Amino acid sequence: MSGSIIGKNIQLSTWGESHGKALGVVVDGFPAGMELNEEDIQKFLDRRKPGTSSATTSRKEDDLVEILSGVFMGKTTGTPISLMVRNTSQRSSDYSEIAQYYRPGHADYGFDQKYGFRDYTGGGRSSGRETIGRVAAGAICSKLLSQMGIEVCAYTKSIGSVTADMDKFDKSAILITPTAMPDIDADKRAMELITEARNQQDSLGGIIECQITGLPAGIGEPVFDKLDALLARAVMSIGAVKAIEIGDGTKVSTYMGSKNNDAFAVSEEGKVVKKTNHSGGILGGISDGSTIIIRAYVKPTPSIARTQQTINKQGENIEINIKGRHDPVVVPRAVVVVETMCAHTVLDLMISNISSRADNLINFYKK
Amino acid sequence: MSGSIIGKNIQLSTWGESHGKALGVVVDGFPAGMELNEEDIQKFLDRRKPGTSSATTSRKEDDLVEILSGVFMGKTTGTPISLMVRNTSQRSSDYSEIAQYYRPGHADYGFDQKYGFRDYTGGGRSSGRETIGRVAAGAICSKLLSQMGIEVCAYTKSIGSVTADMDKFDKSAILITPTAMPDIDADKRAMELITEARNQQDSLGGIIECQITGLPAGIGEPVFDKLDALLARAVMSIGAVKAIEIGDGTKVSTYMGSKNNDAFAVSEEGKVVKKTNHSGGILGGISDGSTIIIRAYVKPTPSIARTQQTINKQGENIEINIKGRHDPVVVPRAVVVVETMCAHTVLDLMISNISSRADNLINFYKK
Amino acid sequence: MSGSIIGKNIQLSTWGESHGKALGVVVDGFPAGMELNEEDIQKFLDRRKPGTSSATTSRKEDDLVEILSGVFMGKTTGTPISLMVRNTSQRSSDYSEIAQYYRPGHADYGFDQKYGFRDYTGGGRSSGRETIGRVAAGAICSKLLSQMGIEVCAYTKSIGSVTADMDKFDKSAILITPTAMPDIDADKRAMELITEARNQQDSLGGIIECQITGLPAGIGEPVFDKLDALLARAVMSIGAVKAIEIGDGTKVSTYMGSKNNDAFAVSEEGKVVKKTNHSGGILGGISDGSTIIIRAYVKPTPSIARTQQTINKQGENIEINIKGRHDPVVVPRAVVVVETMCAHTVLDLMISNISSRADNLINFYKK
Amino acid sequence: MSGSIIGKNIQLSTWGESHGKALGVVVDGFPAGMELNEEDIQKFLDRRKPGTSSATTSRKEDDLVEILSGVFMGKTTGTPISLMVRNTSQRSSDYSEIAQYYRPGHADYGFDQKYGFRDYTGGGRSSGRETIGRVAAGAICSKLLSQMGIEVCAYTKSIGSVTADMDKFDKSAILITPTAMPDIDADKRAMELITEARNQQDSLGGIIECQITGLPAGIGEPVFDKLDALLARAVMSIGAVKAIEIGDGTKVSTYMGSKNNDAFAVSEEGKVVKKTNHSGGILGGISDGSTIIIRAYVKPTPSIARTQQTINKQGENIEINIKGRHDPVVVPRAVVVVETMCAHTVLDLMISNISSRADNLINFYKK
Repeated sequence: MSGSIIGKNIQLSTWGESHGKALGVVVDGFPAGMELNEEDIQKFLDRRKPGTSSATTSRKEDDLVEILSGVFMGKTTGTPISLMVRNTSQRSSDYSEIAQYYRPGHADYGFDQKYGFRDYTGGGRSSGRETIGRVAAGAICSKLLSQMGIEVCAYTKSIGSVTADMDKFDKSAILITPTAMPDIDADKRAMELITEARNQQDSLGGIIECQITGLPAGIGEPVFDKLDALLARAVMSIGAVKAIEIGDGTKVSTYMGSKNNDAFAVSEEGKVVKKTNHSGGILGGISDGSTIIIRAYVKPTPSIARTQQTINKQGENIEINIKGRHDPVVVPRAVVVVETMCAHTVLDLMISNISSRADNLINFYKK
Repeated sequence: MSGSIIGKNIQLSTWGESHGKALGVVVDGFPAGMELNEEDIQKFLDRRKPGTSSATTSRKEDDLVEILSGVFMGKTTGTPISLMVRNTSQRSSDYSEIAQYYRPGHADYGFDQKYGFRDYTGGGRSSGRETIGRVAAGAICSKLLSQMGIEVCAYTKSIGSVTADMDKFDKSAILITPTAMPDIDADKRAMELITEARNQQDSLGGIIECQITGLPAGIGEPVFDKLDALLARAVMSIGAVKAIEIGDGTKVSTYMGSKNNDAFAVSEEGKVVKKTNHSGGILGGISDGSTIIIRAYVKPTPSIARTQQTINKQGENIEINIKGRHDPVVVPRAVVVVETMCAHTVLDLMISNISSRADNLINFYKK
Repeated sequence: MSGSIIGKNIQLSTWGESHGKALGVVVDGFPAGMELNEEDIQKFLDRRKPGTSSATTSRKEDDLVEILSGVFMGKTTGTPISLMVRNTSQRSSDYSEIAQYYRPGHADYGFDQKYGFRDYTGGGRSSGRETIGRVAAGAICSKLLSQMGIEVCAYTKSIGSVTADMDKFDKSAILITPTAMPDIDADKRAMELITEARNQQDSLGGIIECQITGLPAGIGEPVFDKLDALLARAVMSIGAVKAIEIGDGTKVSTYMGSKNNDAFAVSEEGKVVKKTNHSGGILGGISDGSTIIIRAYVKPTPSIARTQQTINKQGENIEINIKGRHDPVVVPRAVVVVETMCAHTVLDLMISNISSRADNLINFYKK
Repeated sequence: MSGSIIGKNIQLSTWGESHGKALGVVVDGFPAGMELNEEDIQKFLDRRKPGTSSATTSRKEDDLVEILSGVFMGKTTGTPISLMVRNTSQRSSDYSEIAQYYRPGHADYGFDQKYGFRDYTGGGRSSGRETIGRVAAGAICSKLLSQMGIEVCAYTKSIGSVTADMDKFDKSAILITPTAMPDIDADKRAMELITEARNQQDSLGGIIECQITGLPAGIGEPVFDKLDALLARAVMSIGAVKAIEIGDGTKVSTYMGSKNNDAFAVSEEGKVVKKTNHSGGILGGISDGSTIIIRAYVKPTPSIARTQQTINKQGENIEINIKGRHDPVVVPRAVVVVETMCAHTVLDLMISNISSRADNLINFYKK
């Protein structure tokens, strides 16, 4: 059954495999009239591009995006925007061995059980390259959000044991540091950790945090399309993510109500504010006007160079050594994936919200 | 926009408010021919019924379910199953005050911003009573799953600082202990903590864990309908849940790959097994044949008796004392909600999986 | 699989069988703030109520609707509106025979092949009573449409060989004539035809026409959610409808382009008009600002008293005489079903249309 | 809002404009393991290719399809199949004039009202070239259906006043005659009619009929996903179709029940058959085991060379002469579009049907 489509108003239909001809996405339902060109998208894709530092795989891909439809005279037309990135660095010879066994930590076994066989070249559809479609689509959503004063900003919170110090938060660092950390010092220590892991033929995980600012209160649809529920699905659907939390997240399980409740208040400027934000900007599944905070916990890259135990297709216990080019940690490249998935989720729910009141419809069509 | 419907093959459409006439759910797409009666559902609803111990609100509701359609001669017909529970203990007089202000930790403010007004009696649609429809529907899904040898079992892992000891895991305790803990000793300590919190006019949170056993490998649809992604959405959509994790969850962010990877092996009986289960039974969004483990972190009940600061509808800073009947901790009653949401998610994806292979279709229609 | 839910923004989930406890619908996604009471819905249900004239079955049902949720202080809340009609005149004893064979022209055989068994009492889910949920839901949509100056008006165009004369169109007649014709003379002749058919133990079909006025240009989403495509699905899903046409419909297949094209013009008041309306108000799947015209062709009631040939469940050729209470023609009662299905379709697409332009979003959230 | 996606289990996401870079479709949810290559698809696309006879536009396009994803080692993988056809014969210079006015019979005005502007080159998204994605996707569905013994066969029933004689039905003629008629004599007369219309600077419409044979009873989901309802939507969504009928269609409105009812019978071979097929193989929205018959009524091409009256964007009444390359009748090229849309609809519902019975699930997972 179909599983590569997400969204209600703006539906993203992603496609493509790691070593196929190309990867891409169809963005259906995006509103008309927004200026859009390849560069708007490319700058997001460049953030997940491999081969940019020692923190990433050495596979070289330019990942250049081509807009195939849905833009006319430099503006979106309201009809499907088709985006494509050609694969250029396929090395299918690497994969003759992998075809025969199931890599630990990978979806190989599940795919074979499900489909009867699998595209084993570079992980096929279950490769991290699948996220190209997500990022390309989310880049477009981000652009429209920014025109409404909403900013979605993700960054690496930690890699292994190294955590960014939020007191040193420097937004500009996110796009510059190889780890996508907002703290230059932590970035340096994290890079050392990565080198160490690589030397040990091992890999690391980490935490990605995403803040959404400027979002008005009222976004999110009770009961199943709550803002946090759809964010959780969107972010958990990213490969390697094993936990999701909103605001204080797991910690609230040990809080008492008197600590966890955020007091509403009216500021001196007459604005509704909250004195704290344990809720991460979401109450009852609906945005409360504060900053949305979401955190994704990412597992260490399963492809490691050291010897591992597993089974082959014949059902024999074997030992393997995975060859090929792999990221020692996927966190830095996944930051923009989290960011764009959140952007799409929020924009989609903002559209849903427009029809919340009968008056909104009546006023719209009165014009 | 519509937000109270979930599922692809079996769609649940829930409805109802805390103090309205009734609550319920329409289960559309459930397969025909399964025996079903009210008792099958009632025993699940009884697990979330209020007023059964000092761990819950004193509101008395029998929450008796009525099957209105979709069952004929004791069997499901394949057409929509409509289930209804009448409210019997509404006390709308309690709510005159609450109408005027926004309770901290509640969705009141978001609802007003979204819809222009709200049903303030007992939280209206954002009340925990909304979950009646979920539990009733999920009970039906659970029954079919059990006929396929799949068991979904949720329990309270912790309340505040008290954690169940999994070495003392006693499944039968879950249905007996007031906390729904599988460890009778921990239950006693948790009950003491609850009494203490109640005396302090405060409330507690906790952790709910759910294990799904017997699920074959191959369940879950790449890319956006991954098993973990849909479980995350389903469980995060439950009010008060602020974090979700699969398997070792948040901890994997500090693991190294060599630790986190679960080695596949062939057992002496010739069965594919994993030597560890850090992955919580899900790899690349697809079940790997091991036990699925999901954990939900629940915040403390926002309704507490002590004085709190907030604002009223006129935009003034005020102090409030919330009256009424409230759970000092929602975790015990939410256990069955987590369990039934997981049951629905898994069953829905098992149906999706049937059409994964062309051969499945061809063989089915050959008959 | 789920098949009793329709709509994208406003989703209708209908349920119930002819001789079950009740029938109903959940309307999820209806905007908040519209005044609504039972009477708004009842007046639509009364138009499809049985037993009101010799043109209908003698089964007596009051079909009184109860609003169970989604309305607070007399206004819609934005959350699911649950509507229920209790069955009161079940006679399950009638159906012992029917259980054993497959009635010609009915879904009996298909249901048994699909589900393995069927609710044979009164047709179960395939009964015309299933439309109660549609009408109740569509009544709510109609009310909101009328507040935007949009009127959906269906009527009987013909019964058997008797056709209403549109030159004598009298809108007030629709709600008064037993045939729901807008032409009192044609109504009389049609009633004679019905009496004749009944005396012959036979039944009649006819045509229902629906006009939608006041709809602005631009409604309908290319490519698959075209206004005419979704109207076709909604109306064809009504039992007994075997053909659908828009505007001049089937006749356009013999027109030449120069005849069929409707010339656009600017009226003296500066309004865009069309000199003709062969298109029935829809071009390329999008409303063009003219009156929408849709026609549904309804087959004669399959339940007739005269002897018929068929097979029984044992696979034997037999002759049957269907007993019970049946409509000699379903057209008059189906008029309001067509009208309400069209109302829902149009309103749903009007909501979809709001997000057609990026500017609409930006302006909405600027407020 | 999204409107270019159709299907539940197999979702087609089409994209592309007449004069954009390319057109295509993503087929998400197609089962794994079916052999597939470009030629399987190309032979369907060739049937809608322009420039093959005097019955079509002189625009030359090879419409060569490229499979970009979802096929590995010659077999479908179960993940999205992305198909693309590059445009090669764009002539955007033709369209400077058309940008300024609204062509009668076209969606120009609706698009401008909806989106604020439009891609006016060759009709943009509302061009008949949009159907390339449909045909490519449906070709894949057809292949799987044929492996299950189900054949979907569409042909031209009539063009203008010339109707194919079904007594002379010659299936092989459909792929050979320029009109796609199954009757060589009628084809000749129709071609003369087309020449005449072209000489008169005018255009023609016609009727497309589609037969689906081999479909088992039980396909179609009550209530809104009835087989006829979804066929109606799928076929009505094709540009230029203005009416849809099943079986005897519009004619049943004048039948009496005794004539319209098809008697079930058991044949000498012990098979359930119907003595007649007025129902067109569908009863109560579910297939009854007989041949499915659906008919689409197609309007004459709106682009005609003769002078027409319309308005321009400035709101002035003007006269226009449309230049460019146009089909004098779209029926022959639309035949394969109807056929492939029907193929997708039927296959999608066959998948839905597999989960109709609890036993089907239990048996499937017992393996």
